[in-house]
Amino acid sequence: MRAGRFKKIPQPTIARLSTYLQCLRDLEKEGVRTVSSREIAQRTGINAAQFRKDLSYFGEFGKPGVGYQVSHLKQRIMEQMGLDEEHPVLLVGAGSLGSALAGYPGFPAQGFRIEAIFDNNPMKVGQRVAGITIEPLESLRRVNSTVRAKMAIIAVPREGAQDVADRLVRNGIKCILNFAPIKVNVPDDVVVRNVDLTQELEVLSYYMRAMEAGQGKQ
Amino acid sequence: MRAGRFKKIPQPTIARLSTYLQCLRDLEKEGVRTVSSREIAQRTGINAAQFRKDLSYFGEFGKPGVGYQVSHLKQRIMEQMGLDEEHPVLLVGAGSLGSALAGYPGFPAQGFRIEAIFDNNPMKVGQRVAGITIEPLESLRRVNSTVRAKMAIIAVPREGAQDVADRLVRNGIKCILNFAPIKVNVPDDVVVRNVDLTQELEVLSYYMRAMEAGQGKQ
Repeated sequence: MRAGRFKKIPQPTIARLSTYLQCLRDLEKEGVRTVSSREIAQRTGINAAQFRKDLSYFGEFGKPGVGYQVSHLKQRIMEQMGLDEEHPVLLVGAGSLGSALAGYPGFPAQGFRIEAIFDNNPMKVGQRVAGITIEPLESLRRVNSTVRAKMAIIAVPREGAQDVADRLVRNGIKCILNFAPIKVNVPDDVVVRNVDLTQELEVLSYYMRAMEAGQGKQ
Repeated sequence: MRAGRFKKIPQPTIARLSTYLQCLRDLEKEGVRTVSSREIAQRTGINAAQFRKDLSYFGEFGKPGVGYQVSHLKQRIMEQMGLDEEHPVLLVGAGSLGSALAGYPGFPAQGFRIEAIFDNNPMKVGQRVAGITIEPLESLRRVNSTVRAKMAIIAVPREGAQDVADRLVRNGIKCILNFAPIKVNVPDDVVVRNVDLTQELEVLSYYMRAMEAGQGKQ
């Protein structure tokens, strides 16, 4: 069982672990075998003390004068984040954003395999996106009884998002990446991360107005 | 000049203003003319006291027993966020993610008009995405001397992201929405918002591992 090795880690640390991981993957590609916390700091922009503190959550310490073994550290972070296994993922919504996400190479590269795509538009059902045939939303239960995904991506318009979230939860989904610009309600044992692209641009718009008004960045 | 009416607003408030705005747009579509802070709270999940406090940054107050006029409040928030005018946007990167963003209806619906698309892949240059002909990165200066965009979206692989950011900044871009999984360095008067889709999934992966280990959500 993995449970024994698992450590509870605060949310900002988790996001930074993801950044370190990316850096370690690069180093590995470059053939670098050991790395100091200072080098990690230079590459990630996160300071060395923070890096060492983040790793201490799961008992990793560099060796003085030697640093960290790249492949070992990468493996340890992947274990802590559950990235040492592949994750099947369901995608709901095959519009422009959903179709792009289906073909986004960043997901499979990191072990997130989109296994099924659903859409409630009869014109889309049966079409293929990124090599996967779009199925009707009604097939979600049947499909996931085989796929057994616990992770899903919502890429439908906001009007449909809550209904989709409810269906996903009823069919065993525990983690949702939600692109619909609405907070979906889920039970306590389900985690949702929201990516609201329009909101990102709106926030940028505010800063642009702020700069035009001569007040600069905050 | 607008500068006089402009108020400096903390970052979390800006994100919430974007949420209120979405809610007000919905209310307007539904034909609702006035709304109480309690109704806003029910729809957005942000509590009424917070809502009233957020609005007080730019001197908006509801009338007791009447509440807020939907269209007026929408207009005021849009002004504060610089959303009362259209923003031309440059898009760099016409891969799967970039192409999807080019066709994402959420952007033009909110006044963000993608005016030009660039890619350094000669196979892509000259092709059309969402009705726009892809241009080589070298044309950025020439194109933006006409378009005069101050906002840009980076959707290139991380290796090319810093170079793209440098070019954008040299050509007048002040606000960047960056989808490359790397922090780009920009001068102090440029604002970057990062959307790292793989990181979002990695964070979810951690929570899934945490749940499997029986520790639930944090």
